[in-house]
Amino acid sequence: MSNILDYETVALVDDDDAIEIIDQTLLPGKTEMIRLHTAQEIWDAIYLLQVRGAPAIGVTAGFGIYLLMKHSKAENYNEFIGELKEKSDYLNSSRPTAVNLSWALKRMQNHIFEFCNIKALEDGSVCLDSAKEYDLKGMICEMRDESERIKAEDIDVCRRIGEYGLTLIKDGYGLLTHCNAGQLATCKYGTATAPMYLAHEKGMNIKVYCDETRPLLQGARLTAYELHSAGIDTTLLCDNMSASLMKSGAINAIFVGCDRVAANGDAANKIGTSVVATVAKRYNIPFYVCAPTSTIDINTPTGEEINIEQRKPEEVTEMWYKERMAPEGIKVYNPAFDVTDNELIAGIVTEYGVLGAPYKEAIADLFNKIQKK
Amino acid sequence: MSNILDYETVALVDDDDAIEIIDQTLLPGKTEMIRLHTAQEIWDAIYLLQVRGAPAIGVTAGFGIYLLMKHSKAENYNEFIGELKEKSDYLNSSRPTAVNLSWALKRMQNHIFEFCNIKALEDGSVCLDSAKEYDLKGMICEMRDESERIKAEDIDVCRRIGEYGLTLIKDGYGLLTHCNAGQLATCKYGTATAPMYLAHEKGMNIKVYCDETRPLLQGARLTAYELHSAGIDTTLLCDNMSASLMKSGAINAIFVGCDRVAANGDAANKIGTSVVATVAKRYNIPFYVCAPTSTIDINTPTGEEINIEQRKPEEVTEMWYKERMAPEGIKVYNPAFDVTDNELIAGIVTEYGVLGAPYKEAIADLFNKIQKK
Repeated sequence: MSNILDYETVALVDDDDAIEIIDQTLLPGKTEMIRLHTAQEIWDAIYLLQVRGAPAIGVTAGFGIYLLMKHSKAENYNEFIGELKEKSDYLNSSRPTAVNLSWALKRMQNHIFEFCNIKALEDGSVCLDSAKEYDLKGMICEMRDESERIKAEDIDVCRRIGEYGLTLIKDGYGLLTHCNAGQLATCKYGTATAPMYLAHEKGMNIKVYCDETRPLLQGARLTAYELHSAGIDTTLLCDNMSASLMKSGAINAIFVGCDRVAANGDAANKIGTSVVATVAKRYNIPFYVCAPTSTIDINTPTGEEINIEQRKPEEVTEMWYKERMAPEGIKVYNPAFDVTDNELIAGIVTEYGVLGAPYKEAIADLFNKIQKK
Repeated sequence: MSNILDYETVALVDDDDAIEIIDQTLLPGKTEMIRLHTAQEIWDAIYLLQVRGAPAIGVTAGFGIYLLMKHSKAENYNEFIGELKEKSDYLNSSRPTAVNLSWALKRMQNHIFEFCNIKALEDGSVCLDSAKEYDLKGMICEMRDESERIKAEDIDVCRRIGEYGLTLIKDGYGLLTHCNAGQLATCKYGTATAPMYLAHEKGMNIKVYCDETRPLLQGARLTAYELHSAGIDTTLLCDNMSASLMKSGAINAIFVGCDRVAANGDAANKIGTSVVATVAKRYNIPFYVCAPTSTIDINTPTGEEINIEQRKPEEVTEMWYKERMAPEGIKVYNPAFDVTDNELIAGIVTEYGVLGAPYKEAIADLFNKIQKK
């Protein structure tokens, strides 16, 4: 197994003729890079989870729409915008619930509008009255730059989260993480794993423990894989072994990612996260949520308002198994996420620093500062 | 699927010519009764986990040694005792760490010694000086009765635990359990499941939630199977979903079994039990440990002194899976049990009543009373 840090999760290659990704459906058994050239290949890669993780999907979509428009034969704005929207809609249909997918495609489109001085109207149409002269080459060049910026920003945010997270780690620490908020979900470093990679790069002696994370086993398949490949001392455990492990004294701090943080600091993340946080509280182990500010939603007052998706029973009863492991007809409780109450969180690690309680005030302050910039 | 309560987990059949058991290795896909006649068949059934669960193994061993001695041609005590020891040793070798296996075989032997007035000496030999006249038929008859008593006592203890546990359940309750402390582990009713079966028999409206219980999935394979087969409203969840479920208000009480209770009430049980207890404490949900007094060990002062077995990594990384689900060479933390601190336990349900805190005093009192009887 090669070191994950020697790979990029998503990259433009072949003189911008293809997107190269690690095929995550083959992990942990096989590390294979694949190249995506056509709209269908990009769509399939997202749909089949060959690339997954919100930031990595966003970057793939940005590169994807650039590649698809690169050979555009459009001869005026109407044709170009029509094609851009059509191809964006197609890519977006690969995983309609993935927020970063539509976010990145929208960002690419808006960048072109801004660059060309095109006004987007509320009904979805555009006003070209004050648009610049039509410049296909210039627009394609801008799309390339903007898609590379999406990637560079992701790497920068992860790196900064890693640096702030690193201030919470001492030499010799045992660290626990849940699910995969790792490099495989981003372009580099990951979020929850960023402090671990930076500590390891600095030669610090750390041990990382990964929850396997049922039902989809992202911890076993992905996090254990990537940390182990980077040469970090990594141990896998089942989700229900956390209390035993924490009681044993092996864990000094916990880092997890998040899907959405409410304005009061309540954090929605992969199912089981709040179990880890509850057990950590009992054993006085600090529990940190690594959250790019893009995942903090100041319009959601508390975790109560976060809607949790229930997923299909087969994920629990048969998905990975040689044979069905539960009786036919059994009901299954299978929520995708849970919400960790802010009082269980020792700090929220963002790219601007580590927020502490009271989170409502800390988050409001941070957003005021960012908006003033 | 037929109702589990219509079956006996272990029974003598065919005019005491065979032991009938449910082949638990075929669950939950197939309910198949198998009959054990020979020493080899009985040994295999225990070794291959076709019968499992401490009490059920004990009963199988009792019946087994009776069946094997039934056709004894021994013509005097020396021959009979030699044969009894040899066959007991053979059965005992099927699962040397199963305490109830050696306990039941020892009990059967001691009963014969007592019945015949044979004195067991410290070096393992016997003194026959005051022994009754040799009576093969009488001894076999005693072995039958004693083995049936082991079974009857198991059923009685479970039923009484069920009745005391039932006093803690109200109509409409949602109940959670972990692992399998069910009928399949005993002869009837189980321990943690006994209050559930009795509530259901009384027509009470209860909903039971079962943790799947990684890595061996006893909750999914066995508990969900047996409760569902009995017509109880049963829902399966992954171990890491307990906080989400408890926060939702679905759970009113938790019942688990135990492997060993220390003199201060600390309870060792299947890995993950103490996670459930910790989460339950946060949501103020009473957490009950169902413990036959045979599992309470007054010679172990606290949970600290209970030695926890580490099991092999493959149980976590590949055992049930279509393919290996974790990277090659990864370290695995895989303890078989964890210890739930007594302060997390709302009550210990025994066959003599429900013990409450302070447990050290309650347990000492109970043992004083039992010993006086």
